[in-house]
Parts: sequence; structure tokens; C-alpha cells
Amino acid sequence: MAQEDALTYLRHGQTPFFRLPLRVKEVPPGARAVLLGVPTDLGATYQPGARLAPWHVRRVSALVQGHHPAHGIDVFAEVNAVDGGNVAFPPFSAPAMREAVEVEVSRVAAAGAVPFVVGGDHSLTLPALRALAARHGPLAVVHLDAHLDTSGPETWGEPFHHGTPFRHAIAEGLVAPGALLQVGIRGPWGSAAEAAPSRAHGGRIVPAEEVGERGAAALGAELRAALGARPTYLSFDVDALDPAFAPGTGTPVPGGLTTREAFALLRALAGAALVGMDVVEVAPALDQGDRTSLLAAHLLFEGLALLALAGRHGGPDRSG
Amino acid sequence: MAQEDALTYLRHGQTPFFRLPLRVKEVPPGARAVLLGVPTDLGATYQPGARLAPWHVRRVSALVQGHHPAHGIDVFAEVNAVDGGNVAFPPFSAPAMREAVEVEVSRVAAAGAVPFVVGGDHSLTLPALRALAARHGPLAVVHLDAHLDTSGPETWGEPFHHGTPFRHAIAEGLVAPGALLQVGIRGPWGSAAEAAPSRAHGGRIVPAEEVGERGAAALGAELRAALGARPTYLSFDVDALDPAFAPGTGTPVPGGLTTREAFALLRALAGAALVGMDVVEVAPALDQGDRTSLLAAHLLFEGLALLALAGRHGGPDRSG
Amino acid sequence: MAQEDALTYLRHGQTPFFRLPLRVKEVPPGARAVLLGVPTDLGATYQPGARLAPWHVRRVSALVQGHHPAHGIDVFAEVNAVDGGNVAFPPFSAPAMREAVEVEVSRVAAAGAVPFVVGGDHSLTLPALRALAARHGPLAVVHLDAHLDTSGPETWGEPFHHGTPFRHAIAEGLVAPGALLQVGIRGPWGSAAEAAPSRAHGGRIVPAEEVGERGAAALGAELRAALGARPTYLSFDVDALDPAFAPGTGTPVPGGLTTREAFALLRALAGAALVGMDVVEVAPALDQGDRTSLLAAHLLFEGLALLALAGRHGGPDRSG
Amino acid sequence: MAQEDALTYLRHGQTPFFRLPLRVKEVPPGARAVLLGVPTDLGATYQPGARLAPWHVRRVSALVQGHHPAHGIDVFAEVNAVDGGNVAFPPFSAPAMREAVEVEVSRVAAAGAVPFVVGGDHSLTLPALRALAARHGPLAVVHLDAHLDTSGPETWGEPFHHGTPFRHAIAEGLVAPGALLQVGIRGPWGSAAEAAPSRAHGGRIVPAEEVGERGAAALGAELRAALGARPTYLSFDVDALDPAFAPGTGTPVPGGLTTREAFALLRALAGAALVGMDVVEVAPALDQGDRTSLLAAHLLFEGLALLALAGRHGGPDRSG
Amino acid sequence: MAQEDALTYLRHGQTPFFRLPLRVKEVPPGARAVLLGVPTDLGATYQPGARLAPWHVRRVSALVQGHHPAHGIDVFAEVNAVDGGNVAFPPFSAPAMREAVEVEVSRVAAAGAVPFVVGGDHSLTLPALRALAARHGPLAVVHLDAHLDTSGPETWGEPFHHGTPFRHAIAEGLVAPGALLQVGIRGPWGSAAEAAPSRAHGGRIVPAEEVGERGAAALGAELRAALGARPTYLSFDVDALDPAFAPGTGTPVPGGLTTREAFALLRALAGAALVGMDVVEVAPALDQGDRTSLLAAHLLFEGLALLALAGRHGGPDRSG
Amino acid sequence: MAQEDALTYLRHGQTPFFRLPLRVKEVPPGARAVLLGVPTDLGATYQPGARLAPWHVRRVSALVQGHHPAHGIDVFAEVNAVDGGNVAFPPFSAPAMREAVEVEVSRVAAAGAVPFVVGGDHSLTLPALRALAARHGPLAVVHLDAHLDTSGPETWGEPFHHGTPFRHAIAEGLVAPGALLQVGIRGPWGSAAEAAPSRAHGGRIVPAEEVGERGAAALGAELRAALGARPTYLSFDVDALDPAFAPGTGTPVPGGLTTREAFALLRALAGAALVGMDVVEVAPALDQGDRTSLLAAHLLFEGLALLALAGRHGGPDRSG
Repeated sequence: MAQEDALTYLRHGQTPFFRLPLRVKEVPPGARAVLLGVPTDLGATYQPGARLAPWHVRRVSALVQGHHPAHGIDVFAEVNAVDGGNVAFPPFSAPAMREAVEVEVSRVAAAGAVPFVVGGDHSLTLPALRALAARHGPLAVVHLDAHLDTSGPETWGEPFHHGTPFRHAIAEGLVAPGALLQVGIRGPWGSAAEAAPSRAHGGRIVPAEEVGERGAAALGAELRAALGARPTYLSFDVDALDPAFAPGTGTPVPGGLTTREAFALLRALAGAALVGMDVVEVAPALDQGDRTSLLAAHLLFEGLALLALAGRHGGPDRSG
Repeated sequence: MAQEDALTYLRHGQTPFFRLPLRVKEVPPGARAVLLGVPTDLGATYQPGARLAPWHVRRVSALVQGHHPAHGIDVFAEVNAVDGGNVAFPPFSAPAMREAVEVEVSRVAAAGAVPFVVGGDHSLTLPALRALAARHGPLAVVHLDAHLDTSGPETWGEPFHHGTPFRHAIAEGLVAPGALLQVGIRGPWGSAAEAAPSRAHGGRIVPAEEVGERGAAALGAELRAALGARPTYLSFDVDALDPAFAPGTGTPVPGGLTTREAFALLRALAGAALVGMDVVEVAPALDQGDRTSLLAAHLLFEGLALLALAGRHGGPDRSG
Repeated sequence: MAQEDALTYLRHGQTPFFRLPLRVKEVPPGARAVLLGVPTDLGATYQPGARLAPWHVRRVSALVQGHHPAHGIDVFAEVNAVDGGNVAFPPFSAPAMREAVEVEVSRVAAAGAVPFVVGGDHSLTLPALRALAARHGPLAVVHLDAHLDTSGPETWGEPFHHGTPFRHAIAEGLVAPGALLQVGIRGPWGSAAEAAPSRAHGGRIVPAEEVGERGAAALGAELRAALGARPTYLSFDVDALDPAFAPGTGTPVPGGLTTREAFALLRALAGAALVGMDVVEVAPALDQGDRTSLLAAHLLFEGLALLALAGRHGGPDRSG
Repeated sequence: MAQEDALTYLRHGQTPFFRLPLRVKEVPPGARAVLLGVPTDLGATYQPGARLAPWHVRRVSALVQGHHPAHGIDVFAEVNAVDGGNVAFPPFSAPAMREAVEVEVSRVAAAGAVPFVVGGDHSLTLPALRALAARHGPLAVVHLDAHLDTSGPETWGEPFHHGTPFRHAIAEGLVAPGALLQVGIRGPWGSAAEAAPSRAHGGRIVPAEEVGERGAAALGAELRAALGARPTYLSFDVDALDPAFAPGTGTPVPGGLTTREAFALLRALAGAALVGMDVVEVAPALDQGDRTSLLAAHLLFEGLALLALAGRHGGPDRSG
Repeated sequence: MAQEDALTYLRHGQTPFFRLPLRVKEVPPGARAVLLGVPTDLGATYQPGARLAPWHVRRVSALVQGHHPAHGIDVFAEVNAVDGGNVAFPPFSAPAMREAVEVEVSRVAAAGAVPFVVGGDHSLTLPALRALAARHGPLAVVHLDAHLDTSGPETWGEPFHHGTPFRHAIAEGLVAPGALLQVGIRGPWGSAAEAAPSRAHGGRIVPAEEVGERGAAALGAELRAALGARPTYLSFDVDALDPAFAPGTGTPVPGGLTTREAFALLRALAGAALVGMDVVEVAPALDQGDRTSLLAAHLLFEGLALLALAGRHGGPDRSG
Repeated sequence: MAQEDALTYLRHGQTPFFRLPLRVKEVPPGARAVLLGVPTDLGATYQPGARLAPWHVRRVSALVQGHHPAHGIDVFAEVNAVDGGNVAFPPFSAPAMREAVEVEVSRVAAAGAVPFVVGGDHSLTLPALRALAARHGPLAVVHLDAHLDTSGPETWGEPFHHGTPFRHAIAEGLVAPGALLQVGIRGPWGSAAEAAPSRAHGGRIVPAEEVGERGAAALGAELRAALGARPTYLSFDVDALDPAFAPGTGTPVPGGLTTREAFALLRALAGAALVGMDVVEVAPALDQGDRTSLLAAHLLFEGLALLALAGRHGGPDRSG
């Protein structure tokens, strides 16, 4: 980092994502990526707190520089990115949250940019998918998570909490058949039927242990092949990682991915036609030494790098 | 504690409040106090997490024995108390929470027992007051808190969050005019108008600093005099205490009460006709070494002691 | 989880293991598994605190549901399990602890059920082995740990602390020759002689690094083959895992297993004739975000799944 | 807070002090207060970390609203305040830090505004005093601290660390004789001679225990009287408070002030001619639940309130 | 601190109490105070961990310098003090601990020095009293604690745990009638009978709330008067303080003393004929930012200052 | 450990590294290893605090015994090792630190012993290399780290911070061409040019992910082969490990090594001619449950084991 850049960051005392320009409610001409915070945890079933993640992820993202040595690219030189601020909504209404996210993500996509949504809990993924599928048609989805998130209202009588987005996404036709790729999944489950929605849609469920057995890079290459040229959405719940690596999350499950596996898997997706990404379920009050917030910043960086690489190949995000 | 009692507690491995009998959905004959957990934080405006408090307060309450040396009474010998379990409701619906709390508190009161409600966030106080005022008429309320909790929907568009219960209680006639006594209050506020609802109702606002200046016991005696024989509800938000004493809460404000002041104030209320009490806003994920959960258990014990003393004098709770 | 089950759990506010029925000092007809807490740390040589683990493991075990996707079974449908409460004893007498554990484990086994003992420190394993070997004859033991736990009284003049159970178990003939399989072991040790007791008994010592080199599933299959049809006891000290995965333990040693390795290894034991299991050395005051307590709950679930699978094949535990 | 203000804050995702406008290197016309972060801990003798405080104090200051009920004023309505960003300098040069702080504070004062400096460690106070004394002449200084901070280079051979600013300030004539008022001081000291610099200058040393004995408000009134109309600088080291109230600091000393005493003391200074303030020695990595950062925000708010009140009486800060 | 002293401390990298000379098993000629660690928690009834306190109290005591400004004395110039190392014993035998403490304290006293014992749990006080009463006759005891510690074996069947030392001390005639002064006591208790042993012996029980009501200095003066010239032992359980000030302890009770009260009370004892002191029940694993260990170091420093002042007046400790 | 050794350690209450003899400023005849603490963090660019590591690493190193089962050697029997205390210097002068480290390391090497330096931050490596290269000529360096540490003054205008030691080492000819082996490196970087200094010198950069792909033992064997008989320095920045394994460090980067990989890699270096080692960047205030300090102790033990093995083969360190 040049000294002037460093001093400029210090001087402002603010914390935009990756020290990027802040452009609230505005997608500047030429912007290819807009980072949006979504401060909500209205969808949490166990420990809440994800609503405060956007501030913490922004704060620690200042440590993340721009050159990606594994890909050999300068991410922010390749991708014109801005911090789009947060999606704002009254904090007691999940429907208002969903509506606001859908509107904002649509706006970003309409401007030809790719949204990177920083949760917030996983219930925000449904409106993001709605907005992007409306634009790009049914999407391929790479979903990293400990949980399948295809539950229905059976336990809590509520159809739209953080354990349900992919059930709706399938039902609403937002995900292309066969194109829901769920990685990091592990039990216990309530019943064997939990896998039914994904399987009925032709999706692939990759348990966490399989990531280790096959190798994250090899698995990522398979997923990459499966994606083809389809517009692809990447939804990353940090509880896909083991609680040792991502302690700051509300429903941790032991037996998860390592950070290195997560990065290898994402890097193997190079060339995919990324049209959106989210990183969700960071709960700062549960975090330990900012470990999970820092992880989230790195995951976003990996996603931005994918966009940079996608840009080289051309992809649907450019045609916006 | 007799050895057999201690071993019995160890043997069961469960954590009912104060090692009391567990009587779910049942008020046994002769019971004068029923402790009810309310696992909710749907009303939180800043850091959530109070939904998990009932389990933690129960766990540490095992340390609290039964003799109150300052009052010179054996509380559980005087007060037949049971753990009534939790009020249960689907976790995504604040209206369902309010309805369930009102029903359960009514049920307890109808059986002639006094409810001790363990939050959960402060939005549960409104339905508790509704239930008790329906039985006893307009109540005197001693409200310990950093905040006035008389806000309206002006900030968030939601009328029933944890900053609003006393506005509704006043508007609905649940609190007797002149009988809302708010202690531990401190700023900053949004505007001077925040005090208007309380003041218009003839209530008394005692800033935290006044507790120190006058002495908690002396102040408590004044409050006691003001209560007279009126049926009295005690609502204790743990953020009335300074964050040093009650760190595990979602909206801490420096400058609060000490634990000793809180106890002295409660003890000075001896003889009041206690018809209900809540202890709210304990957020275990924010706690430090169970300090706040343990405090909450002691506050409940002080309330139970008040009931024991009220019983000696006769009070509306016995006539139920 | 069905809504009524979820609400029932919430309503009671108690924390039996896995939300199972609580049956203290009673093995109900048909019960195949009894979970027993043993709140002791009298055997700790360094940091104590394991005495409080049964309450915390119970609390977080509520998150663990019943379907095991890797084995494809509904564990609690296959295994009739209850929370048997804790083994209770005066907290200052290690001999009293050992006697009480032996009595309670014998009682469970006599009723034809398999005990799952939740420590407490590792010194409880000796009386558990005594009880089970008395019933089943010399046992095969799979012992996961950072330490060999075959020390004698040489350092502290005390023969029965948490570093000694397997020395006694060998000496007392509780472990079948060649059937002590110790996994996750790592140094430094006091001297090379530390391995002598195990080796003299024909046991196998698998260092933590070997788990990685060979793969946990492959290693587990070898262990499974070595067990054959012998009645098998599984003793899991959570410090077998690396402190990153199990920080809440009194004598952590870097270089340990991952959670995924631990699960893979246990799963590979399917078909073994499990007659008992313990999970020990969880120290809640040292834990970070309940990570170790949650791990312990998952390890117990893996053991219960093994019992479910053993039941399919028939095993000595059914003949009790 | 009006809903639009709240949503605007949420939408930007940034954390200016008190949600104020950010005006870096610019004092807008009419501004009476400029908050400046100084991210340094080059002066720390024991535990460093204060360099990161400006970001954390900003973050939690969003919780602090504008009406001061004890004074009965709307602080930000009375005081036109801005977040002036941080003073930036290369992080390895204490002389560069001192020079930059002096320049920036001078710039603010020259524009007729009052600087509120958010450390960073206490070594930043010397250049702030240099800048302000250059403008206003020798200052009265109210210094809250556990330590006298009048050490010389005797221990470490370095004249300008965080234990030395007031020795230099006296020697350089920045503090008016008799006008150094040091409150909260407590031992142990290296020797009795530590008090010599202050006493030789006619200053007053008020031990922490004296604050309790006399009462913070009464003591504050005495200090207020001693200040008269002199231009006054307020330097608040958070370790003036007891570690229970301000755990997040590098050299904590038990026996300190309470938050309520700190606020009472500051409020009693109403009418003083405040020309500058600092809040220093917050070390976020040592903090517990943001308690110390939140305290710092409240202390700054109290200082801003003093400025609001000073403005009513007229003061040297307006003539700038 | 002179630079050479500071560098010498840094250079050794060790942590003797207060940077004093280490003299293990040796009381050097002229030594008036010997600090002894007692690493035990065999007497803990709830959360153990005090066994590790001597190392942590030593570590943070390096921050404590030698001049006591309130007394106006240079403590280590007045009192020739050494770190006597720890009392060592096998860690599984409470009787061995008691014997070793009695031997070591006797040895220190026999050499004419005053022992300052750093626990460890409170069960070490009994052998310390035995040793000192054997030398000085029945002692006056100032006992600061949340608990009376006069329990018998009724709960746990063990007569010598950390809740029992003063029952034995009374029964064995180690405490002079009327000379047991217990301060900071608070409930709840098991029954009113808990106070009987103290009261039957003519002791004084000062509840924590009375410390606040009367003022710690005034109360201390009363206690001082009651002590007269009798050889006096000071036993300080850190849970006398509120958990906000002393979180690192195994059985915290809200409603305790402040650090300032503790210091004022101890300072008021100036002139008492101190023959021994202990500071017990620091549990480092439960501590928060070393707050309790640092407090313990300051409490020891206050005791050493009392010895310095006692030396001026002559006292039984000099005649040893 | 023999009982007498254990009790001797307990009795002293001090914490020399690995319970070794303390020999400050003195290399006893026959000593082959001297452990030196360097309490500095003057070179930290982000979170400081490493200055306190030597005390914490010493404290937890008491848990580490002497037999290395993987190598099959008794390390302290083979290597006569002492705790050489700390390198002491005024804490505000980085040049003084560098000079003192160079002097002390030279002194140790001149006495024919191998220095094991316990940081402190990574800026101490430059003077250590200067001292050792002056004695042994250009060195082979195995450098484990997340960062390349070959930066120049471009960002901060300071040439000697913790991100720069290897740039200087190369420029000053301290590292033999082709002999800088950097392992665990990961991005993001500021630019691709960051790798230029290492590459221009013929060094090898092994990204963290490559460690996993090739296997740590295999990679270590390659590195071992590359070292040949050259005098070798091992510089271990704990942030080479993933933050899950080494949370207590100032600039953590996700995606790092596991503890098991670190140990395997070091073990594979057996036979290398080790002339010095450092373990740096442990920041105790950021640590979680002493995990990182304990790791550092184990890393030092691995280095000492290498020295023991080197001794068997003969190496330059014996010729000193």
C-alpha cells in the first residue's frame, strides 16, 4: 500500500469495505461490484446478533489488500468496486427487509454491477436471489453452509426464517434444476427428509467430510464444471467452516471446513459467471478476536477475485 | 443446605430456578410464586440475545440459597414457589409472544400466585401488565432501568419494541396515575420530550445519580411510601445497573446503579403489595463470567423476599 | 423437529441431554442407552473445572437433532435413550466418586442398557471400566486422548488421578491384552518409558500425526477390525482434539485431531459391540463460545449412533 | 431519533463520532467542536493497543443521542460539531505524532473551534497543550487520571512517553501556575517525589479516595471555582476510573472513580471556558464488551455539553 | 523506579512478588515479611481454579511500586520483604496441604517475619492460623469475605473445605473471643443459624451494605479500636468485593465492596499488630483482564504497608 | 516428571522456560542452547502487544516435558539448555532494541551455544541474523510466516519494522543466495512486486495452501535437502498458523497452517545445522486461553529437538 493511501485511510477514520469509495444508493458508472451490508438477524432461530456484522466486517476488511497471489491478479484494479452502504429498513419487519434487499440488489444489477451482500442472517438470500433471477433467469447456486436451509414452516410456523431460503428459491424457480450445489453440509438433521427438497431439484449435497476426502480444489473443479456458463450466485454461510475457524456465528456445528478448504474451493470456481454473492451469519458478539469477521472479509475478497476473472472471460454480469 | 438436598440437585442435573420444583402449565395448590421464563428478544433495538437468558439465570440460580439475612427470613419457607417453566411461543412473532405472556401470567394470577417473569427483553412487560391490571386494576409500577421505555413508533415504525412498554401501559390505563416510579434513568436522550409520557401521568423519574445522592435505602423508603397499599408491579431491567455490574445486556449505559444500591432499594420496598415482577434484558452472549445472570437471580430472590414479607402483612396477591 | 416438540422443550426450560426424558436412578424398561453426568475434577493435575461440564453439555445438546445423515439412521428412533441424571457424591472424596460411578454404571449395565458417561475428568473411567468388565469380561478399549493416561503415582504420590486410569485398568485385567487402542497421543512426555504400560499390554499407540497421515477413516477401519466382536468401551478425552477445536479443557496440547477426523474415526467403528462410552475433560470455564461443550454433545451423538448400528448387528449390550 | 436519521445512519454503514458529519482537514464555517482521533500508542510503557481506539469509540458513539437531561440541553443543537477524522502520521515516529497533533489542533483552534481529541495514549496531550497554549496563553488543566503523568526520563531514558506530558507542560509554561488540577490519582508510586512537579507548580492533587469522601459534585464545584474564567483544558485518561468501569486500558489501577463520579465531576464544571479536551488510553483489545469505548463516548459527550454551556456564557473558544 | 531496577527486572524475565528477592525455604536475616504462594483449590465447593493464582498474582505484582502515598511511606524501604516461593505439596491431598502450610508459616514466624500467604482457596487459612496462634496465642482476626466460612460438614460431609476455616479456628481456640471481625458478609444463607458460630464467639459480622452505610474508613477505625494491641491476622477473600471488581473468583456474590472501600478499610487498620495476612480465592481462569490478580497484589501491598506502620509502633511480629 | 522436580518447580513459583536453570548474562560452560526473551513490539504495524509474550510463553512452557516421542529423544538430556533471561533495553527505542539483541545473540553464539529467541515482534530477527551471520557467514533461513516480511519503507517511511527484516537480511548479505525458504505465505498482498525481493535472491516461497497439497512432512524433507549442511536459522512467526490455532497475534491471516503441519515440517528438518531460532509475534492480550503461548512453547521445543539431533550429527553450532 502506498503511504498516501495508508494515511488517507487513517485520516478519515471511517471503515468502508476494503477502503473502497462509499457510494450510497448510487452505482457509479463503470462500477462492476457493489458491496452492500444488510444488518438483520430477524431470521435467526438460535443465537441472534448478525445484524451488527456489516460494521465489523467493514472494520477488519481494511487489513485486506488488493493483490491475489494465487490468481496473480490485482483485484481492485480489475474490478471497479464500491461500498454501497447498507440496505436500510425498520429493524422489526422481516417483510420490509426482504423487500428492501430485493429492491437494492435489483438496482445494483440493473446498473450492470454485481452485488456482494454482507449479512445479516441467511434469510436475506431469498430476496437477493429473487432480484437476480428476475434479471438473469434461473441461477446456478453454490451454497456453502453447515445446513441445507431448505426447511419449511414445520418447526416454527414461519416460512421465511434463516433455515428456509433455498426451499423458497427452488419453489419460486429461482434456481435452475440441477444447479443447486450445497457444500459443507453436515448433521445431525431432524430427519432424512431434510435432503428431499435439494435432491428433488437435482441438486448436489456435498457433506463437509467429502470436502476433505476429495480435496477442496478437486471438488471445486467439479463444481466449476457443473456451473458451466450459467449465471451463478454464491451464498456463503460462515458456519460452513468449523467453529474453530468461524466461532462468531449463531448456529455453529462442529466438523466443518477449514479456511484453506474454503479458499481453495472458491478459487477453483474461476471463470464462473458470477452474478452475485453473499456472506452471511457472522455474529460479532459471538466472535473471538474478530476471527470470523476477518474470515468474512477474505471470503468477499475471493468472490471479488472471481468476478475479476469472470470479467476476463466475459459473463452475464457485464451485459447488465 | 442439607446434604441430601445438595445431592438431589446434583443427581438430577437439571436447573430449575433456585432448585425449586418444576411445575409446567400447572400452579400447584398453595403456590404463592411462579417463576416463568420468557425466551424472547424480538423487541431488541440494538444487541439481541436475551432470548437465551432463562436457561442461564436458572443455571446460576442454583447457587442462591434461601435465608435472607437482611430481612431475617427464610424466603422459600415463607413463599411456596415453583419453577413454572417457560412461556412458549413461535420465535418469530412478537404478537404471539405478547399473547402467550398475557395468557400465562393471567393463569398464574388467577390461581392466586404471583408471577416472576424472567426475560427476555423488556417488550414482555406490556402483556404482563395487561394480565395483572385486568385482575388487580391499575397498578403501581416500580420500574428500574437506564431507559424510560416510553418511546413510541417514531424511530422504527414499530409500536411494541423493548423501548415502548410503559407508553402503552399508561395509554391503556394499566398504571395508576402518579404511580409510575422510574429509577436509574439516565441520558443521553433523543430529546427532552422523552420524559413527557411519564411526567404527564404524574410519574416520578429518579435519575441514577439521584440514587447515589439520596441513598438507595432512603429513596426506596420514599418509593415505598408512595406505593402505599396499591397492588404493585416491579419491572427490573438489568441495565439499570452500571455495565460494570451488569455487562450482559444489549443496550448498556454507563453511570448506573451498583448492585448494593439495587438491593437496598428493593429491600426498602418491604411491605409493598407485590403482584408481579420481571427481570429483563439479560443477554448471556454478552455476559462476563455469568455476572449478569447471577445478578438477575439475586434480584429475583429479593423480589421473592418482598413477597414473603408482603404475605406477612396481607396483600392483594393472597386474595387471588 | 416438530413444532410441538420444540415448544415442549422451550416450555420446560430444563436441559436434559438431547431433550431426552429424565429418568434419575431408574432405567426404564426397554432403555438401551443411559446418559450419566459425573461432575468431578478431583483428578485434575493442572487446570480443574470439569466438574461443571455435565450442565453445559446438557444445555448445548439441545441443538443436536436425531438423524445421522452419514450413517443414514434416526438415532433416537433406533436407540431408546434417557438422561439418567448425574452420579452424585460428596465433592471432596475421590474414592467416593469412584465407588458411586462404579455402582451407577453397574446398575445401568445390569438393566441391559449402555452407559454414556459425561465427565468430569478422566479419573472416572477406571470405575466405569471396573463396572463394565465385571459384567462383560475384559474389554476392548478405544481411547482417544492427547495423553496415554497410564502414569503411576511417581509424580504426585497419588495413584488415581486423571493421568492414571489405564495403568490401573491394565493391572486390574479390565482391558483385554492387545485391545487397548490409543489414538491422538502426542508428546512431549516425561520419558520414553511412558509408553511402556500400553506396549507391554500389546496395545496400539496411534500418534495424532498418524491420524492425519493415514486418514481417520482408514485408521478407524483398522481399529474396527482389531476390535472384532469384543465388548468395546470408548473413552474420549476431548484433548485428543487440537485446542483450536476443543479449547475448553484443562491440559490442552497443540497438534491434535480435527473435529472431522474425530467424527470419521468414530463412524468407522460402526458394528463394534459398544458396551460403554465416556466423554471427559470438558472444562466450561476454559471454553470459548461453548465450542467444546458442543463438540462433546456431538461426540456423544456419534457414540449413540454406534450403539444404534451395533443394535442392528446384535451385540453384548443387548444380552444384559 | 427520527426514523430518517436512523435509517440514514444505517444506510451509510460508516461510524463517524456521534453520527456527525465527517469533515476531514476542514473546519466548516460555524463549527464549534471538531472531534479528532489520534491513533497512537507509541508512548505506552506497559500494555499498548490504544492506537485502535478511535475506530471503536466512533463505532459505539452511534448509540449516544443528543439530549443531556441533567443539563437540560440538546448538545448537538447547541454545539455545531463535526468529526474531523484522524490525525494521520507514520506509525513509528513519536516526534511525527507530536508534530501532527500540534498542527491539527492548532488548525482547529485557529478556525475558532474547540478540539476534542480521542486517543491514543496520553503522550498526545503535550502537543495538544502546546497548540492551545500558543493560542490562549497558559491554560488551566483539569486532569483525570490514576497517574500524575509528571515523570521524567529517569526510568526509560525517554522524555516523551505517556507518563510525562504534564512535566513538559509545566516546564514549557503551558499550564498556568496553580491551575493544574489532578483528580483520581492513586498509588503506589515509585517515591514521594513523584508529586513534586505538580506541587511545585501549585497544582492540586485529588486522590481517588478523596473524590468519594467529598463527593464528586462538591469536588467538581471546587474545581470549577478554581478554574474561574481561565481557558481550560480537560484531559481524561480513562484509567482514572476503576478497572471495573474501564477495563480496556493499558495500565489499570484498582481503587478508581466510578462512572457516576466521573460524570458528576464533569457536570460540575459547567461554565468553565473549555478550549480543548482529550479522552485517552482506551485500549480496545483489552476492553470487555466495548465497556470502555462506550464510556469514552459518554465522556466526550459530557465535554461537548460543557462546551454547549460555555457557549451560553461566552468563552475564549468563541473569540478564536 | 530507577532505570537499572527496571532493566534488571526485564532482564530476568521472572516474576517474584513485587520484584522482590526470591528466597525459597530461607528467611534471610532481617526479613520482616515473607510472601508465600499456596497453589491449592482442594477446598473449593463450586468453581475451582485458585491453585494457579500465585503465578498470576506474582506476574501482575510487578506493576506495583513501593511508595504508598496515602500512608506517606516507602513500604519496601520500611519492610524488608522477600518472595519465599510457594508452599509445595502433592496436589491431591488436602491434609498434606494443611500440614505443609502450617510448617511453612511456623518457620517464617519463628524467624521473626510476618507471613503473607497468597492462595489458593480459603481452606489454607486454618493451618496458617494454627501456626500463628501457636506462636502468638489467640489472635484477633479481620476477615473480609462474602461468606462467613464457619460452615461445618453438614452439606458435604467434609470438615475442612473453603467454607469452614473459621469454625475450626474458633473451636480450636485460635481466635480470641470477641475478636473475629467479619466484613463484607452477605446472603443469601442456608439458614439463620449460619451466623451462630461467629456470634457465639462474640464476633462481629459487618454486612457489605453496612460498609457503605457507615463508610469504610469509619468502620475500619472501629475495627482498629477493637483490635487494640492484640496480634492480628488479616484474611482477605477477594469475593468480599463485588464481582464487578473481583470477577476472578469461584463463588462470586453480587452486592460486595468496592476496591476503594477495601483499601480504605485496610488503611484504617494502621497500627494494628499484624502477624499474618492471606489473600485467597483468586481464580485466574475466571478472571477478566487480570483485574482480580491485580487487585490481590494491591491488597497485599496494603497489608505490607500495615506491617511497615506496625513496625513503627512496635508489635508482636518484631519480637519473634 | 519426578516428584522432587515437580515440587521444586512449584516451590519456587517462578517460570523459567521449560523449568530450566536461569542464567542471566551468562552462558554456563557446556550450554548448547540459551533461550532469550525479547520483550518488544516497537515494530508492530497493526495490533501491538508482543512485548509481553516472553512472560506468558515462559509460564505455559512449564507444561512441556522433555521426551520427544516422534524423534525418540530426551531433549533436555541431549541439549544442555538454560533460560538466559530477557534482552533488556529501553522500551522506546527500536535502534536500542536492535543493538541489544545483536549484542546478546553474539554473546551466546560466541560461547558456542545456540540462541532461541522468544519475541516480541518480527523486527528482532534482523539483529539476530546479523549476529549469527557475523559468526557463521551467510545463513540458510527457514522462515515460517503468513507474510513475506520483505517490505521496504514505502508504506510507513520506516525501514526497520516487523514487515521488513528479510529485505535487510538479503541486502546485507546475511542470507545465502537461494537459501531463503519462506513457508506459509498467503495473500492478499499490496502488489505482485512483494515477492520480488525473495525471488531475486533465489528464495523459495511456499504458500500455505501448498503445505497442505504436498504434505508438510514431504515439504519439510525438500526444505531439509535444500539446506544441506549450511548453518541454518529458523524464524517462526506464529501467524504462519491459521488464526484458529494461533489467535494471539497482531496481524492474523486466515488460511494458514495447522499445528500438526507446523510440527511435521519442523521435524522433517532433522539433521539441519541449526544455529539459531526465533518464535515471534505472540501477543498475549489477543490470545485465547493461552493457546498461542502454549503453541510457541511447543515450537521452541521442536527447535530444541532439532538442535539435539543436529548435535548427533555434528554441526557448526558445536564449533563455537
